[in-house]
Amino acid sequence: MASEFPASLVTPNAEEGLQLAIRLARLGVKAVQPDMDILRRLRPKYSEDAHELIASSHVIAVHFQTIARVNDYWRDQEGSCDK
Amino acid sequence: MASEFPASLVTPNAEEGLQLAIRLARLGVKAVQPDMDILRRLRPKYSEDAHELIASSHVIAVHFQTIARVNDYWRDQEGSCDK
Amino acid sequence: MASEFPASLVTPNAEEGLQLAIRLARLGVKAVQPDMDILRRLRPKYSEDAHELIASSHVIAVHFQTIARVNDYWRDQEGSCDK
Amino acid sequence: MASEFPASLVTPNAEEGLQLAIRLARLGVKAVQPDMDILRRLRPKYSEDAHELIASSHVIAVHFQTIARVNDYWRDQEGSCDK
Amino acid sequence: MASEFPASLVTPNAEEGLQLAIRLARLGVKAVQPDMDILRRLRPKYSEDAHELIASSHVIAVHFQTIARVNDYWRDQEGSCDK
Amino acid sequence: MASEFPASLVTPNAEEGLQLAIRLARLGVKAVQPDMDILRRLRPKYSEDAHELIASSHVIAVHFQTIARVNDYWRDQEGSCDK
Repeated sequence: MASEFPASLVTPNAEEGLQLAIRLARLGVKAVQPDMDILRRLRPKYSEDAHELIASSHVIAVHFQTIARVNDYWRDQEGSCDK
Repeated sequence: MASEFPASLVTPNAEEGLQLAIRLARLGVKAVQPDMDILRRLRPKYSEDAHELIASSHVIAVHFQTIARVNDYWRDQEGSCDK
Repeated sequence: MASEFPASLVTPNAEEGLQLAIRLARLGVKAVQPDMDILRRLRPKYSEDAHELIASSHVIAVHFQTIARVNDYWRDQEGSCDK
Repeated sequence: MASEFPASLVTPNAEEGLQLAIRLARLGVKAVQPDMDILRRLRPKYSEDAHELIASSHVIAVHFQTIARVNDYWRDQEGSCDK
Repeated sequence: MASEFPASLVTPNAEEGLQLAIRLARLGVKAVQPDMDILRRLRPKYSEDAHELIASSHVIAVHFQTIARVNDYWRDQEGSCDK
Repeated sequence: MASEFPASLVTPNAEEGLQLAIRLARLGVKAVQPDMDILRRLRPKYSEDAHELIASSHVIAVHFQTIARVNDYWRDQEGSCDK
């Protein structure tokens, strides 16, 4: 898993932040099932099923929330105490 | 996906923030299933099924939470430390 | 959707905050399925099914969390840095 | 619903905070299905089904998170910026 | 329920924080179904079913997030404004 | 469970933070079902089922959010009030 993990959670913009969230969601799946053959076999199940696609999008949304915070929402921070 | 990603997570108001949340939820789905033909075929499944509609609304709610924070909840921030 | 969207996420109290959360949850559903006839047809499905009612209450809870934060939890904020 | 809504989200302690979270979760359900007869009829369905009980506990957990924050986690706040 | 509720949400360390999160998740279930006989009868259903175990772990994760915040993440806070 | 619980929620980097999130998700499952034989028997059910894998990844995402915050998102904090 090491080789796949991003070197940093900092991204230049929100779009790459979403890509990173997708990657983290996948790493979560691989942590439970590291066998790539099984994952490949399951792919049609989740990628062609509306319910699983929405569930996947939900996991991505949770990670995006974390990534966005890591990056201070990709907005300027001029010494303010904002959150 | 690049072309569809919003240039910024900043929106003038909450209504456009919700629209952006909807867009991010869709981009999450497309990240897992980029084939538009399959997505179109699945559409009746999720858009005419109460369970999937509620699940979609849930993903939108999570992204809206992130977007609202990006935009400091669309309320004034006069140097305060508020959150 | 424009006409239905609240002019502001600020509410005088928590009760109206919950009402607003309910409204946002509905707008999320309508964003995916804008056809009111289909939504009306689905109504018995989700409003008379324990699972869907709990799922709806969950989406409302997520939006309420956002709305509560917008409104600084409807408590006084006297220059404190509190969150 | 008005009559049932708590006058305040502030509670003297965490235990009453959890009770309030339970109440908000119920108000979310009632907002979608206000007919008490239908809700009573559904009760055995969700209160004797492990899946629905866990789902209900989840909604309560989300509201408890909000209520805990409203109450500054029921811990002292002596001018600190802590969260 | 009163007798079971923890006197405080403050715990000496993260491990006891997780134990407390588990307890809060259970209190949420008991709030909806207080009859211990029914809960005992349901036990095999959720404790020997992968889906319910994961769902339970999810509720625990949400409460752990709250408890961790109550305890300032069990890390030192030396007058900093950190969160 | 004591022996398995991490001594600290602080990790040197995000990758180990994700590993810790996975561990917390598992501890949540074990809290509800401590019998390792039953858990082993259930393993094929959740590790070869797309739905359960996504659900597991979701729990991991929630814990990762907590762990990331414990570690101040693994970014520098130079006396700023940032979050």
